[in-house]
Amino acid sequence: MKKIHIIGLGLLGGSFSLAARRKFPELIVTGYDISEKNQKDAEILGIITEAKNQPDSDTDIVLLATPADSLGRILEETLNQIGEETLVIDLGSTKSKLCQLVENHPKRKQYLAGHPIAGTEYSGPKAAFADLLDGKVMILCELEKTDLYLKEKAYQLFEALNLKLRFMDPEEHDRHLAFVSHLSHISSFMLGKTVLQKMEDDQNIFDMAGSGFASTVRLAKSSPAMWAPILTENKENILAALDGYIANLSAIRDKIASSEKESIYQELAEINQIRDILDLGKG
Amino acid sequence: MKKIHIIGLGLLGGSFSLAARRKFPELIVTGYDISEKNQKDAEILGIITEAKNQPDSDTDIVLLATPADSLGRILEETLNQIGEETLVIDLGSTKSKLCQLVENHPKRKQYLAGHPIAGTEYSGPKAAFADLLDGKVMILCELEKTDLYLKEKAYQLFEALNLKLRFMDPEEHDRHLAFVSHLSHISSFMLGKTVLQKMEDDQNIFDMAGSGFASTVRLAKSSPAMWAPILTENKENILAALDGYIANLSAIRDKIASSEKESIYQELAEINQIRDILDLGKG
Repeated sequence: MKKIHIIGLGLLGGSFSLAARRKFPELIVTGYDISEKNQKDAEILGIITEAKNQPDSDTDIVLLATPADSLGRILEETLNQIGEETLVIDLGSTKSKLCQLVENHPKRKQYLAGHPIAGTEYSGPKAAFADLLDGKVMILCELEKTDLYLKEKAYQLFEALNLKLRFMDPEEHDRHLAFVSHLSHISSFMLGKTVLQKMEDDQNIFDMAGSGFASTVRLAKSSPAMWAPILTENKENILAALDGYIANLSAIRDKIASSEKESIYQELAEINQIRDILDLGKG
Repeated sequence: MKKIHIIGLGLLGGSFSLAARRKFPELIVTGYDISEKNQKDAEILGIITEAKNQPDSDTDIVLLATPADSLGRILEETLNQIGEETLVIDLGSTKSKLCQLVENHPKRKQYLAGHPIAGTEYSGPKAAFADLLDGKVMILCELEKTDLYLKEKAYQLFEALNLKLRFMDPEEHDRHLAFVSHLSHISSFMLGKTVLQKMEDDQNIFDMAGSGFASTVRLAKSSPAMWAPILTENKENILAALDGYIANLSAIRDKIASSEKESIYQELAEINQIRDILDLGKG
C-alpha cells in the first residue's frame, strides 16, 4: 500500500485518509474535491499529501466519497482512467444502481462496492477525524466480482482501519439501509421541521435539554448535500419504509384520539423489544 | 427540611430522593409504591428510609412521581391527608388537567405543579441515580397560587438539587411538551415498530451500530407504564403535533416519489437551522 487517491474530501473521505496515514506513515494520498475550499482545507489538514485531478497510474486504491447521485458518473470516469493495478472502491450509502451501472463494464473486476456505516451530523474536511471508522461496520457487495489480487489490497486497508466486514447483495443492502438509516434520518428531519414550524407560531424558544428531543432530532443536523441524493437514489425502498412508518403513526394517532389506553400500552410494550435487537447489534 | 414523602419510587421519585439524601444526610424519606417489589427495592437501595402508606403529619414535602393518569386521584387524596405545614409537588409530564382539577380545592395553596425535564429510557427504582436531576430544568406552573412559606421549602429542595427553574402556565407547558418531548417519543416508538415489522419479514438482524438508528430509536425503550398515560392525558396537544408531523412526512414522501431533488435539498437545508435552536437551548 503506497498510494491512494480520494475523490470527495469531506467527513468520510477525510477520515479514511487520516486513519490510513496514521497507520501507514509513508502513504501518499492524492485527492480531489469539486469544492476548491474543501480541497485546500484537506491539504492544510493533512488529509491529502497532494491535490490531483485524477489518480496516478501507480495508485493502489481510489476511494470515491462523493454524494450518492454523483457516484455513477465518477465511478465510470475513474474506471476509464485507471491502470491495471488500481482498485476503485466507492463508499456510497446506496449500492444497487451502482452495481447495475457497471455490471458489464470491461473493468468491473477493478471495482469494489462498499459502505462504511459511520458518520456524524457534521460534514466537510474539517469534520473528519482519524477514529471515525475505528471498529465500525463496512458492508461489501458483490465481492465475487472483484479481482482476487486487488481485493487483497482492500482487505489490507480495511484491516488497518479496524473495520468489521459484512457481506450483502446490493438489493438487500439498500432495503435494509432504507429502514435502519434512511428512515431514521427522514423521521429526524421531519421532527425538526415540525418543531420549527411550531416555534414560528409561538415565538417562544423552549429549553429542550433533557426532553428527549435533542437525541431524536440530532440527525436533522446532517448534510443536505449528502442526504437529498440518498433519498432519491434509494427511492423505492425508502418509500416502502416511509409508507410503513406513516401508517404506524396514523394508527397510533387514531388510538390516542379515541383514548384506547390499554391498546396503546400494549403496543408500546411490544415495541420495547427493540432493546434486545439493539443489544444484539452490539455483539 | 427534615422529612419528605415520595409516592411512586421509580426512576424519577428514586432519583429525587437519592439526590436529596446526599445533600441533607439527616433527611427522613418515607415513601410508597403501588408495586411491592419496587417499594422493597427502594428500601434496599436507600431511596426511602421507611415505607409508609401515607405521609406523616410533620412531612415538609410530598412528591408525587406516579404515571400521569394516576396523579389526579393521588393529588386529591394526598391534599386531603396532609397537615397545614406540608407542600405537595407533583412531577408529572402534563399539567393542565391537574391544575384544573384542584383549582378550587380548599388546600390549593399547599400544591405546586412541577415537571423536571429529566429522564432516561430506563425505569424503576434500580434505574434511579443521584445525578439524574443535576443541572436539569424544572418547570413550575401557577406559582402564584402556592403559599409563600411552603414555596420557600420547595426552592430549598430545588436549589439543593441544582435544578434550573422555569415558569410557564399549564396550557403553554402542555403545548410545548407535546412538540418537544411527547412527539419525539411517539416518533421513536413508531420508528422502532416499523423496523421490527420489517425484521419479521426479513428474518435478518442487521448490525445497526453507527447507522443513526440507535440514537433515533433510543426513546422507544421508554417505559409504557409512564408513556401510554401521557399520550392520552395530553391528547389534544399531541394530536396537533402528530398531525403536523404526519403532514410533513407525507409531503416529503411525495417529493421523494417524484424525485424533486432540488426541493428536497432546500427543505433539508432549512431544517438544518435546528442546530442553532439546539445550541440556544444550551445557553
